[in-house]
Amino acid sequence: MTYTISQIAKALGAEAAGNLDLTVTGAAEPGDAGRDQLALAMSPKYAEALAQGGARAAILWPGAAWQAMGLEAAIFTTRPRLAMAGVTAMLDPGQGVAAGIHPSAVIDPSAEIGADVSIGPLTVVGARARIGEGSVIGPHCVIGMDVVLGPGAFLREMVSIGARATIGARFIAQPGARIGGDGFSFVTPEVSGAENARKTMGDQGEAKAQAWTRIHSLGAVEIGDDVEVGANCTVDNGTIRNTSIGDGSKLDNLVHVGHNTRVGRDCLLCGQTGVSGSVEIGNNVVLGGQTGVVDNIFIGDGVIAGGGTKILSNVPAGRVIMGYPGVKMDLHTEIYKAQRRLPRLLRDIAALKKAVSKPGPSE
Amino acid sequence: MTYTISQIAKALGAEAAGNLDLTVTGAAEPGDAGRDQLALAMSPKYAEALAQGGARAAILWPGAAWQAMGLEAAIFTTRPRLAMAGVTAMLDPGQGVAAGIHPSAVIDPSAEIGADVSIGPLTVVGARARIGEGSVIGPHCVIGMDVVLGPGAFLREMVSIGARATIGARFIAQPGARIGGDGFSFVTPEVSGAENARKTMGDQGEAKAQAWTRIHSLGAVEIGDDVEVGANCTVDNGTIRNTSIGDGSKLDNLVHVGHNTRVGRDCLLCGQTGVSGSVEIGNNVVLGGQTGVVDNIFIGDGVIAGGGTKILSNVPAGRVIMGYPGVKMDLHTEIYKAQRRLPRLLRDIAALKKAVSKPGPSE
Amino acid sequence: MTYTISQIAKALGAEAAGNLDLTVTGAAEPGDAGRDQLALAMSPKYAEALAQGGARAAILWPGAAWQAMGLEAAIFTTRPRLAMAGVTAMLDPGQGVAAGIHPSAVIDPSAEIGADVSIGPLTVVGARARIGEGSVIGPHCVIGMDVVLGPGAFLREMVSIGARATIGARFIAQPGARIGGDGFSFVTPEVSGAENARKTMGDQGEAKAQAWTRIHSLGAVEIGDDVEVGANCTVDNGTIRNTSIGDGSKLDNLVHVGHNTRVGRDCLLCGQTGVSGSVEIGNNVVLGGQTGVVDNIFIGDGVIAGGGTKILSNVPAGRVIMGYPGVKMDLHTEIYKAQRRLPRLLRDIAALKKAVSKPGPSE
Repeated sequence: MTYTISQIAKALGAEAAGNLDLTVTGAAEPGDAGRDQLALAMSPKYAEALAQGGARAAILWPGAAWQAMGLEAAIFTTRPRLAMAGVTAMLDPGQGVAAGIHPSAVIDPSAEIGADVSIGPLTVVGARARIGEGSVIGPHCVIGMDVVLGPGAFLREMVSIGARATIGARFIAQPGARIGGDGFSFVTPEVSGAENARKTMGDQGEAKAQAWTRIHSLGAVEIGDDVEVGANCTVDNGTIRNTSIGDGSKLDNLVHVGHNTRVGRDCLLCGQTGVSGSVEIGNNVVLGGQTGVVDNIFIGDGVIAGGGTKILSNVPAGRVIMGYPGVKMDLHTEIYKAQRRLPRLLRDIAALKKAVSKPGPSE
Repeated sequence: MTYTISQIAKALGAEAAGNLDLTVTGAAEPGDAGRDQLALAMSPKYAEALAQGGARAAILWPGAAWQAMGLEAAIFTTRPRLAMAGVTAMLDPGQGVAAGIHPSAVIDPSAEIGADVSIGPLTVVGARARIGEGSVIGPHCVIGMDVVLGPGAFLREMVSIGARATIGARFIAQPGARIGGDGFSFVTPEVSGAENARKTMGDQGEAKAQAWTRIHSLGAVEIGDDVEVGANCTVDNGTIRNTSIGDGSKLDNLVHVGHNTRVGRDCLLCGQTGVSGSVEIGNNVVLGGQTGVVDNIFIGDGVIAGGGTKILSNVPAGRVIMGYPGVKMDLHTEIYKAQRRLPRLLRDIAALKKAVSKPGPSE
Repeated sequence: MTYTISQIAKALGAEAAGNLDLTVTGAAEPGDAGRDQLALAMSPKYAEALAQGGARAAILWPGAAWQAMGLEAAIFTTRPRLAMAGVTAMLDPGQGVAAGIHPSAVIDPSAEIGADVSIGPLTVVGARARIGEGSVIGPHCVIGMDVVLGPGAFLREMVSIGARATIGARFIAQPGARIGGDGFSFVTPEVSGAENARKTMGDQGEAKAQAWTRIHSLGAVEIGDDVEVGANCTVDNGTIRNTSIGDGSKLDNLVHVGHNTRVGRDCLLCGQTGVSGSVEIGNNVVLGGQTGVVDNIFIGDGVIAGGGTKILSNVPAGRVIMGYPGVKMDLHTEIYKAQRRLPRLLRDIAALKKAVSKPGPSE
C-alpha cells in the first residue's frame, strides 16, 4: 500500500501542507518511523520524538510548526483518534487470506457462497449456510448449518458460528470468537436451595440436594450490521427466542453474553465483561472491562459502567455507575474515600464512646 | 420433528386438554408462535401475548382457561422451567453433524470408535483414544492420545481434550472448551516475594527478583457422568493427581478450573467463574457468575456464592455468601447498606466530635 | 521413560540414599503410587500416606527416616516445589505429536520450517512464516503470515498466532491461546459520553449518541524468550507500535492483554486477569487471579496484586496491593475488618447521637 499525503488528507477530510505528493507505505510512532512512514504525532508530547525517527511526513495538531520539525509534509487533525481510525484503515496490511476458496475448505454443496468471497484453509461451511458477497473468512472457521452471514464479513481464524445464527453486514470476528453455543440453563425437579436463597437473600430453606436437568436452546443468535466480536468471546443461543446484538455494537475479548439477552445499538462491552441471561441492554451502553451483569434485569440507554462494576439491579438510562454492587459513580467515589478512612473512623468512634462514657448497645 | 400434544404431555408427565392429536413442529414465545408451534405461556403474564401469535396449542399453568384464549389444546405444568427442559429436549433441531465419520477427519488407526459414533469434518482423534458409542463429535475437535470419552457424548465444534483425560457418559462440551491444558504452576529457585507476601499478608521481605521454573503436569483431567462444560472454558491437568469434575456438574462459558482442583457432584459454576489450583469443592455447590476462588481452600457441600464473589478462605457447608471478600449474604447486605450510608456517617461523626468537643486521638 | 534414583537425584542436584539403581517410570502422590512410581512426599503430612501406596522410592525432606517408611531409596529436597519442577520435567509423557510434518497440515511454500520441527495434523502455516528448530506444533494450529517463532517452541492444539507476531525461544502456548487479535479500539466522530464521564468522574455532559468508528491495528505482538501463555488467553496487536511480553513472563488461562500494553520480564499473570490497552507493567510483577488493570497506567517492578484486585491507577514498584479499587494490602485488610464491623458501627453511632442528644447535620 502506497498513498500520497494528499490521498490520506482527503480520506480523513483534513487539511494538509507541504509536499502533498510525498508517498508513505505505513504508519509509525514518531521515534520509530522510517522515511517512508507517516508519523502519528497528534500532540506536542508525541511530536518531541520526531527527531529520533526518520519520518518526512506526520499527522499533527492544527497550527503545529511542521517545518520547524524538519518535515516535508503534514496533515492536521482536530480529533486525533478519529484520524487514527482513518489512517489505520487505509494502511492495514491484513492477515493475508488468499482470494477464492482454499481447496482444503470443506463446503457443504448446499451452502450459498456470495461473489468475491475468500475462504481460508480448512474452514468448514455447513448445509444451506449463506455467506454474503465480499466476505473474507479466515482459516479454521466453522460456519454452522443454516447460518446467514451478511456481506463484507471479516472472520479471523478459528471463529465458530452455530447453526441458525443470522448476522448482518460487515461483521468482524476476532480469533476464537464463539457465536451460538447453547445457553447455560438448568433446572432441578423441585425447588432448589439456590432458588430459595435468591428469594430470601440468603436462606436456602429446606431444599434438598438434586441433580440438574438441561434446558436446550431452541433459539439462535441474531446480530445486526457493523458488529465486531473479540477474541475468544462467547454469545449464547436463546432458549426460545434469539439472543440478539444490535447494529454497531462491539464486544471485546473474552466477553460473555448469555442466552436470551438483548444488547442494543452502538454498545461497547469491554474485555472480560460478562452479561447473564435474559438481560435487556439499551443503546449506546458502555460496560468497562470485567463488568458483570446479573440475569433478568435491564440497563437503560447510554448507561456507562466503570471497570469491574457488578450490576445487580436495573439501571436507569444515562446513569454512570461503578462498584460492587454498582452505584452512581459519584457515590462510589465518596464511599471509596470513606472506606479508606474507615480504620481511623473506628478509632474515632471508640474515643467518642469513651468521651461520652455511656456504652453503645452492642459493645 | 413433529409431535402430538398427547406425546408431549406424556413425555412431560403433565395433564393435557383439548385436541390431543394436534401436531406441533417447534416451540415459540406466545407472541411469536406460528400455527404449528407450541406456545410457552407458563404464567398469565406471558399468556397475554397469545392473541398476537398464531399458536393453536400452549403450555399453561394448572387451571388456565385455555379455551377462552382461543386455543385448541393445552398442556398444564406446575414447574414451568422443568416443563421447558422436557419440551426443548424433544424439539432441539441440533447442529447437523452428519452420521458416520467425515472423510476429512484424521483418526489415528489405534483409536477405538464405538458404534453409532458421528464425527464431523476435520476432527482429529489421537492414538489409542476411545470414544463411547452413540457419541456425536462436531467439526474441528481434537481428542488427544489415550483419552477415554464415555458413551453418548456431544461435542460442539472446536472442542479440545488433552491426552489421558477420562470422561464419563453423556458429556456435553460447548464450542472451544479446553479440557486438559497444562496447569499454571511455577516456582522460583529461592523464596519469592509473592511467597513472603502471602505469609505476611503484604510484606515481600528481602526476596530478590528471580525467573520462574515450570512445574509440568503429569496428571490429567477426570470427569464424571452427565457433565457439561461451556464455550471457551478451561479445565487444567493436575500436577501429580488428576483434576476432577464430579457427576452431574455443569460449567458455564469461560469458566476456569485450575490444576488439582476437585469439583464435586451436581455443582453449577456460572459464567467466567475462576477456581484456582488445589481447591476442594463439595457437592451441589453453586458459584454465581465471575466468582473467584483462591487456591488450596475447600468449599463445603451446598455452598451458594452470589455473582462476583471472591472466595478467599474455606467456606463451611450450606453457607450462602457474597462479596469481596465473600462473607455470609446477610452480613454482605448489611455491609452494603452501611457502605451507602458511609459518606453521611462521616459527617455525623464529625458533628458528634464537635458536640463532644473533645477531639479523637487521630484527628 | 525410565530413570534410576541416581539419575533423578543428579538432575535435581539433590542427595539420595538407599538403592540408587532402583528405577521408576513415573511419579505419584504417596497413597496412589505403584511400585514403579516415585512417591512425592516432601513433608511429614504427605509421607503418612506412603503405607497405603506401593512406592519403593520417594522424594522426602532432609533427614527423613526413609527406611522406617519401608522405602528402598529416597531423594532429599529442601525446596519441594523446585524438586517437583525437575521431576515433572523428566517424567512428562507429553501430548504425542508425531515427529515430522503431518501430511494434512497446510504449509505455505514460502514458510521456513527449521530442523527437527514437528507439526500436527491440520495445522496451517502462512506465507513467509518462520518456525525455529526443534519446535513442536500441535494439531489444529494457525500460524499467520510473516510470523517469526523462535526455536524450541511447544504449541498445544488450536493455538493461533496472528500475522507479523515475533516470538522468542522456547515459547509454550496452551490450547486455544490467541496471539495477535486486533486491538479493541473505537472512536466516535465527536466527544462521547464515556470520554466526558472519565474526565469528570461521572458526568456524561451533553454528548450525543453516536456510532463507533474502528481503529485498525497496524502493530503486532512481540514476545520474548521463555514465555508461556495459557489456554484460551488473548494477547492483542498494538495499534501502531507492538504489544509486548518480556522474557520469562507467564500468562495463565483466559488472561487478556490489550493493545499496546507492555509486560516486563518474569511476570506472572494469573487466571482470568485482564490488562487493558497501553499499560506499562514492569518486571517480576505478579497479578493474582481475576485482577483487572485499567488502561494507560503503569505498574512498577515487583508489584504483587492479590486475587480480584482492580487496579485503577499507577502502582509504584514493590507495592503489595489488593481490593477494588486496589490499595496497599495492609490497608485493605484494615478496611475489610472495619467493613465487617460497619453494621455494628452504625448502631453505635446512633446510640452515641442519642447520648449526646444533639442531632448530626444530616439526620
